[in-house]
Amino acid sequence: MRYLTGFGLGTGEERVAGHSGRFLVGADEVVVLADSRYTIQVRREAPGARVFEAYGDLAGRWEELVGSVGARRVGVESGFVSRALWDALAAAAPSVELVPVEGWVEVDRAVKEPSEVERIAAACAVADRSLAALLPEIRPGATEAEFALRLEWLIRTGGAEALAFDVACLSGPEAALPHGSPGDRSVLAGAVLLFDFGAQVEGYRSDMTRTLFVGEPSARDLEVYELVARSQRAAVTMLEDAVHGGGELPSGRSVDAVARAVIVDAGHGDQFGHGTGHGIGLATHEAPSLGKSAVGTPLPSPTVFSVEPGVYLEGETGVRIEDLVFLDAAAGRVELLTRFPRDVVVVGHEGVGA
Amino acid sequence: MRYLTGFGLGTGEERVAGHSGRFLVGADEVVVLADSRYTIQVRREAPGARVFEAYGDLAGRWEELVGSVGARRVGVESGFVSRALWDALAAAAPSVELVPVEGWVEVDRAVKEPSEVERIAAACAVADRSLAALLPEIRPGATEAEFALRLEWLIRTGGAEALAFDVACLSGPEAALPHGSPGDRSVLAGAVLLFDFGAQVEGYRSDMTRTLFVGEPSARDLEVYELVARSQRAAVTMLEDAVHGGGELPSGRSVDAVARAVIVDAGHGDQFGHGTGHGIGLATHEAPSLGKSAVGTPLPSPTVFSVEPGVYLEGETGVRIEDLVFLDAAAGRVELLTRFPRDVVVVGHEGVGA
Repeated sequence: MRYLTGFGLGTGEERVAGHSGRFLVGADEVVVLADSRYTIQVRREAPGARVFEAYGDLAGRWEELVGSVGARRVGVESGFVSRALWDALAAAAPSVELVPVEGWVEVDRAVKEPSEVERIAAACAVADRSLAALLPEIRPGATEAEFALRLEWLIRTGGAEALAFDVACLSGPEAALPHGSPGDRSVLAGAVLLFDFGAQVEGYRSDMTRTLFVGEPSARDLEVYELVARSQRAAVTMLEDAVHGGGELPSGRSVDAVARAVIVDAGHGDQFGHGTGHGIGLATHEAPSLGKSAVGTPLPSPTVFSVEPGVYLEGETGVRIEDLVFLDAAAGRVELLTRFPRDVVVVGHEGVGA
Repeated sequence: MRYLTGFGLGTGEERVAGHSGRFLVGADEVVVLADSRYTIQVRREAPGARVFEAYGDLAGRWEELVGSVGARRVGVESGFVSRALWDALAAAAPSVELVPVEGWVEVDRAVKEPSEVERIAAACAVADRSLAALLPEIRPGATEAEFALRLEWLIRTGGAEALAFDVACLSGPEAALPHGSPGDRSVLAGAVLLFDFGAQVEGYRSDMTRTLFVGEPSARDLEVYELVARSQRAAVTMLEDAVHGGGELPSGRSVDAVARAVIVDAGHGDQFGHGTGHGIGLATHEAPSLGKSAVGTPLPSPTVFSVEPGVYLEGETGVRIEDLVFLDAAAGRVELLTRFPRDVVVVGHEGVGA
C-alpha cells in the first residue's frame, strides 16, 4: 500500500481501517479507497491518486470501481485478500475477472533504491545510538520490561518516528525464547541479556539483536556466544567472497547453509530452529528469505537483509547476534548497516559502560 | 486466537508469525500451531492445548493435522484466511471439507463476562489517570507528537501493559482528521486539542477521546463542543431509558440514529461521517457496531461499547467526545467506564490544571 501509493496505515491499524487503504492500479491512474476518516490523509499522502469513497459495501460498488479505471481483468493479491471478500467481489460483478497474483510487489521491494537504503541506514544509526545510551544504565535487579521501555523511549526520542516492532529484552534462561516478550522478571547477574529491537525512519526499518553479559560471563555462555559469532562471520565472509569474486550471488538458502553448518558442527544444530535472515524495508520481514526452505536462486541486488544465527538452550540460556547487511553486487559492496560492537560486551559492573 | 486458546501475538506480530498462533478446535482438544520461535510461549499461555509444529508448509501437513483431531469437515474463518491459503489447503487434502464461517467467535465476544468488564474498567482507569496527570504539562508551543509520547509514557508506566492503539493528539484544524496522526506541529493557543487514546490491561482495552481547549475557547469551538456533548448525552439517555424501562434493548442502528439526529438538526450532519460507536474488548473495534449500517436487532447484553459522536470542520476545527458504556440489561445498569470529566476543560493557562 505505502510502496505503491504513498498512503500508509499504522501498525495494526488495518484491523480498524475497513477497506480504507486498499487500492487499484489501472493503466492510467491509481485509485485509493478511503472512508471519511481517511480521505484527508489519503489526499495528503497519495497526492497523485484518485480517492474512491468506500465503506463496508465494497462489493456493491466493485463493478463501478473497476469500470472507472477501464478494466475488466483485475489481478488481486490472493495472499492478503480473504476468502470471504474474494467471494463477495466475484459474486457482485461476474463480468469482472479476478486473477490471483502473489509476490509481484514483493519482488520489486526486495531490490532497494538508494533512498530506501539511506532510510534503513538512518534507522540503524538510531538503534546503535539508543543501545549505546542504555548501556551505562543496565544493572542487575531492574526488570526486563523496564529496560525494554527505556530503550523504546531512547529510540523514539532519538530520531525514530516509531519502533519497527516491540523491543525484546530477555534475561538468562528467557533468552532461549527467540520471540519472547520482556516481563517483570529481574535481570540476572552472571547471565546474558538479549535485546532484539528496531527503529523506523520515514517508513523504513532496522533490526538488530545484541546479547550482552551482565557481570562476569559464565564459560558456557561465552562458548555459545563465540559459536554464534563464528556462524555469523562465516555467512558475511561468504557474501564478501561472492561479491568480490564477481561471480553469481549465492542464494538465501546457501547463505543459511553456511551459517548453519558452523552451529551443526558444534553439535547445536537442533538449538538453531529459525532461519538465518530476512529482507527488511517498509516491513520488518520481507524478501529475500535466508533459510533452509528459501529459494535456490541468487539473492537480489542491491538489497538489505539480516544475518542472525542463534543458539537456544531451553531453560538455560540463549544467544543471537543480528546485523543488517547491505549487498550491492554491481558496486562490489557488502556493508553492515548496524554498527554497534559485536564483541563480548559486559555491562552492570562498577565502572563498566560499553 | 487469544479468546479461544489463551495464546496471543503482539500488535502487528501476525505479519511475522507465519502460521504460528493459528489453531484448530476439535471435539476433544484445541491444537495451536507454532514454529520453533513460539513453541515455549504457546505451552505457557495455552497450557491446555496441544502444540503442532508448523512452518511454511502448512498445506503439506493439513491432512495430518485435521486427521489428528478426528475431523473431516472444518469450519474456517473465511474473513481472516486468505484466498491463497484457502486454495492451498483445499488442494492439499481434497477429502477434508472446508466450510466458510464468519462471525461465530465475534458473537460470543460481544457478550462480556464480569472478568472481562473488570479488565476493561481497569484499562479505563489507567487512561483517566494518565490524561489527568498530563493536563498540567500542556502548554502552547510544544508539539502534538511530544504530548502524544508523554501521554503514552504515563499510560505504560501507570498500570497498562501496552497502548490499545497509537495515541492521537491533534491540535486546531488537525482535529478535523478523525484518524490523524500527531505531528511535529506546535499545539496552538485558542484552539482545540484532541486526544484519542486507550490502555491495555491483561489483554483488554479502553478507548476514550477528549477534546480540550488550550487557552480561551472560541465561540465557534464552544458551540461545536456543546453540540457534540448533547449528541452523546442523547444516546446515553436513550440507553438508560431502555434499560430502566425493561423493554427490548435498542439496536446499534437506532442508538446511532438518536445521536446523529442531534447533529443533523444543527445542520452538521455532513460533518459527522463515522459511526457513533463500536464494541471493545480484546480488540479495539469489535461487535456490536453502532452506525447507520449496523444491524437492526437489539444490542447484546452484558456488553461494552463506545459512544463517540464528532463534528469535523475541515481546515478549521474538530470535536469528538468518546466514552465507554457498560450495558447490562438484566442488572439494570448503564455505566460509563471512562470517568474523565466530559465538561469543557481549559488547559495551558497560567494556574489552570484540570
